[in-house]
Amino acid sequence: METKKSKKPLKIGKAAARLFNKSGYIETNMDHIAAASKMSKGGVYHYFSSKDEILHFILSNYMDLILDHLESELDEFKDGPSKIKYLISRHIDLYTGNLAEAKTLLHEAHCLPAKYYKTIATKERKYYRIVAEVIKGFLGDRAVDEAQITSLTFLLFGMCNWIYSWYDPKGSVPPEELSEMILTVFLNGVNNYRP
Amino acid sequence: METKKSKKPLKIGKAAARLFNKSGYIETNMDHIAAASKMSKGGVYHYFSSKDEILHFILSNYMDLILDHLESELDEFKDGPSKIKYLISRHIDLYTGNLAEAKTLLHEAHCLPAKYYKTIATKERKYYRIVAEVIKGFLGDRAVDEAQITSLTFLLFGMCNWIYSWYDPKGSVPPEELSEMILTVFLNGVNNYRP
Repeated sequence: METKKSKKPLKIGKAAARLFNKSGYIETNMDHIAAASKMSKGGVYHYFSSKDEILHFILSNYMDLILDHLESELDEFKDGPSKIKYLISRHIDLYTGNLAEAKTLLHEAHCLPAKYYKTIATKERKYYRIVAEVIKGFLGDRAVDEAQITSLTFLLFGMCNWIYSWYDPKGSVPPEELSEMILTVFLNGVNNYRP
Repeated sequence: METKKSKKPLKIGKAAARLFNKSGYIETNMDHIAAASKMSKGGVYHYFSSKDEILHFILSNYMDLILDHLESELDEFKDGPSKIKYLISRHIDLYTGNLAEAKTLLHEAHCLPAKYYKTIATKERKYYRIVAEVIKGFLGDRAVDEAQITSLTFLLFGMCNWIYSWYDPKGSVPPEELSEMILTVFLNGVNNYRP
């Protein structure tokens, strides 16, 4: 019973994320979401009290996918380059495996009311800190200050996240090749970075 | 007279771009734009028949800033690395010098109706082609295929454009240092890229 019950919110979230991608968050309403979820509006309201709550549910789940077990998984890798390689391919895999949710995060997070946005921003900061820490470890004792580590971390996020504007996982560059390309550019770039 | 007249649309565009950044395109209306431009609503309608037209005006002007003289300026540089260096610092300078317009382009372009969006997309494609051509020239006869050049070009755009989500030009990394950092990462990354 429990499993069956908890599948419905996920189904609503998936349908809503696809609608947000297609028409934008603001222009989507609860009627659209109910229709796309093949449920009555009352059925949707049984699980979510508002559209904001649905958006929050989608983004919070996606950030949990990104964060869950990340630190223990990273501990399995001994050296900086392997950790960075793992981070990039994991980021790209989660993105391509959850396109609607990932695009919703990048496009619509700013639509969330402050109280909801705060919990997402906290999770995003946690992810940022984990990635920055790995990059810092890789740079070792090279004289790179905190502001430069921050910038390098966001340059990596830039390469990984900007793909929402151009990348088609079904196109001629498969996700593994894209991950490898980002890794090569970033590792060689950072390796040769002398502030 | 002509000069004075043509300043008003620019003033409206600047005020509107700031509002779009603050509240989002969809939630901003012509009343807000008139108030922020310190004009009557009739005054705004004298220059623009709709909010879509204002958004198109802002984005089209910004893309013109990016494209105007770009090719002849690039011709002044003889080698690939100098051309790429120039492209990056020009991109970052235009971004930091026109924050409201640049953020509007990255955030709100998808709100434009198709007929308006088409002219912006054409300009964006032209810019993409110029940058891809420079990267292709830099890579020379290395065995990199078109799909890989496309990917590398968008990785560069990713690093340059993602800054809208984190970068403060008045923070501890000045624009020149950011440009230099992107250049170092990209050049070393691409230089060592072996498909």
